[in-house]
Amino acid sequence: MRLKFETEAHEPGGQARTGLLETRRGKVETPVFMPVGTGGTVKAIDPQELVELKFGLILGNTYHLMLRPGTEVIAAHTGLHKFMGWSGSILTDSGGYQVFSLAALCKITEDQVSFRSHIDGSLYELSPERAIEIQQILGSDIMMVLDECPPHDAEPAYHQKSAARTSRWAKRCLAARTEAGGALFGIVQGGLDLGLRKSHLEEIAAIDFEGLALGGLSVGEGPELMEKVVSEIGPQMPKDKPRYLMGVGLPQDIIRAVGHGIDMFDCVVPTRNARNGQLFTWDGPIQIRHACYKEDLGPIEPDCECPTCRRFSRAYLRHLYISNEILGVRLNTLHNLHFYARLMERIRSEIAQASYNKWAKIALVRLQHLENEKKV
Amino acid sequence: MRLKFETEAHEPGGQARTGLLETRRGKVETPVFMPVGTGGTVKAIDPQELVELKFGLILGNTYHLMLRPGTEVIAAHTGLHKFMGWSGSILTDSGGYQVFSLAALCKITEDQVSFRSHIDGSLYELSPERAIEIQQILGSDIMMVLDECPPHDAEPAYHQKSAARTSRWAKRCLAARTEAGGALFGIVQGGLDLGLRKSHLEEIAAIDFEGLALGGLSVGEGPELMEKVVSEIGPQMPKDKPRYLMGVGLPQDIIRAVGHGIDMFDCVVPTRNARNGQLFTWDGPIQIRHACYKEDLGPIEPDCECPTCRRFSRAYLRHLYISNEILGVRLNTLHNLHFYARLMERIRSEIAQASYNKWAKIALVRLQHLENEKKV
Repeated sequence: MRLKFETEAHEPGGQARTGLLETRRGKVETPVFMPVGTGGTVKAIDPQELVELKFGLILGNTYHLMLRPGTEVIAAHTGLHKFMGWSGSILTDSGGYQVFSLAALCKITEDQVSFRSHIDGSLYELSPERAIEIQQILGSDIMMVLDECPPHDAEPAYHQKSAARTSRWAKRCLAARTEAGGALFGIVQGGLDLGLRKSHLEEIAAIDFEGLALGGLSVGEGPELMEKVVSEIGPQMPKDKPRYLMGVGLPQDIIRAVGHGIDMFDCVVPTRNARNGQLFTWDGPIQIRHACYKEDLGPIEPDCECPTCRRFSRAYLRHLYISNEILGVRLNTLHNLHFYARLMERIRSEIAQASYNKWAKIALVRLQHLENEKKV
Repeated sequence: MRLKFETEAHEPGGQARTGLLETRRGKVETPVFMPVGTGGTVKAIDPQELVELKFGLILGNTYHLMLRPGTEVIAAHTGLHKFMGWSGSILTDSGGYQVFSLAALCKITEDQVSFRSHIDGSLYELSPERAIEIQQILGSDIMMVLDECPPHDAEPAYHQKSAARTSRWAKRCLAARTEAGGALFGIVQGGLDLGLRKSHLEEIAAIDFEGLALGGLSVGEGPELMEKVVSEIGPQMPKDKPRYLMGVGLPQDIIRAVGHGIDMFDCVVPTRNARNGQLFTWDGPIQIRHACYKEDLGPIEPDCECPTCRRFSRAYLRHLYISNEILGVRLNTLHNLHFYARLMERIRSEIAQASYNKWAKIALVRLQHLENEKKV
């Protein structure tokens, strides 16, 4: 068994749905958010804390891990799970996105992509076959095909050519998977061109993947254009397979995308923004460094039961932030990840109660409150 | 009750002793090591982890806290315990040491010391009375008198003059303590001059403090000269009061000082060195960034039961260090603090079994093993 997926509740008159996704390592309820564990650690967090926050599925980055520590070190540990002390499920990307966005001197041919490490400039090659080989070495439970993710404003002709190659690479990835390999998801590209998105979806949906992803979004096109694609393509993705919107996003992006039938999300926002002092609440984010919190004895959010809010004041968190204390990064990250876990739990419960669309409207208004407005 | 202290076991033919020290917040067994919580956090560690590591007494730095976040913020939280989420005991220094070592434009008069903040250059004044007032605002369980800590190589005449002033300040500190104040320890100065040390000890011991400290050591004089003073003065300190060697030290320094009758220690070494990748073992420290650990699947120390060694390999810790991952700092700090906790536990148990001196000799040899020798 590589992957089982069953949808459960469906929002009447809408696309939102709950489901149960089972990898070879465990079950997670969908819609699900995956914290990003870029370099073998969800930044600032102990894997045990992820368990306590009830995350069951995290994302690992093939590009970062192949560069550092390198596949041989992870292979010596029998895989990423043992290396990083995480016994839940892991989805790995193919490395493609980072190759195109981070690496230097990136060169694409039909056969493969070659690039230089952004860390030390050394030369690497990544083919569809190698991307699967590495993900299998990592012991990934859900692997992603190697795709090209062009800039959203690339020429239409380039998007077309690139999507066609992504389809050919997708087939090579599937062929390269061995018996030992985990589930494999295809990726739909096509930029902001709905026609190209639809035809590419048809090509990818015709291949025997365990799930499908929407790639090439949340890459600077803005929330409106992203939602246009997701609202059009999401509902057309196969209903019986998990639908994954890669690299998304803010709480409001997730709420909207769930309304268009998306089941899976990943994003660095809760962890990265925590490191910058931005803390999520149901009334929008607050910036903890602001002077208004200097003597604020209250928690980040009054009803929050996260390990941070139960014990520490905004004033203390501000002090840690201002003083560059590592504990501050960790407490902020715990709060933000707990907020995302609660968000997904709430989303699932509203769908189960057939009240998702109504709830989403109200939640979206609240989430757009501004810190300054609240304080004035 | 401000402080109770009772000695228990005594090493036959030696000075080492165990004891039970009780503050108004709880009991700790001595000899005890206090992790340093400079700016309202033991760096990289959650207070809950300190509880799990069985620390009951930590140190807070008056100088750092008065500058940032400032006493009014901590007062608003009713004290440092609530502010930082720590319900164990807290010993605070007086701020004197940092004023003399960190602050700029430091000016001493009989009345007080004035200085400029090393953070923003703003002007502060610290008198014996103010040092006690601030420590009472912090809610300190064991306060320290304001003393001057001259460089170890200052002129003899200066040491003499300074020690005399420290005695006068000590009396003013005791007079400034109110009913609500915690225990108060006097500090013996006098540099490396054993005669001056003895006469200053007599002056300080004559004042009604709840404990006595040796200050002005571990300030660059080297372990031999330090031990000369500790071995001479330690055994002459009042037997019925806790004896605290400030700012010490490495495991070998602690083992030696316990042999001279010292009960209490504090040092940034386990936490600071963890951040620099130096990890303590019974066979001396290892530097985790070294290439020899790249594929090392073993824990830092095979028999160690700390949260790091139970779950993570040296290769993983090296990877986190090389990648500047925050989790690495935390896991390293947990190991080092656990090592110090085990060290103190072992010290107490050897004294209780009347085998301390014998054990200490062997332990000191092992601790001086060098990483490179082990690896060749």
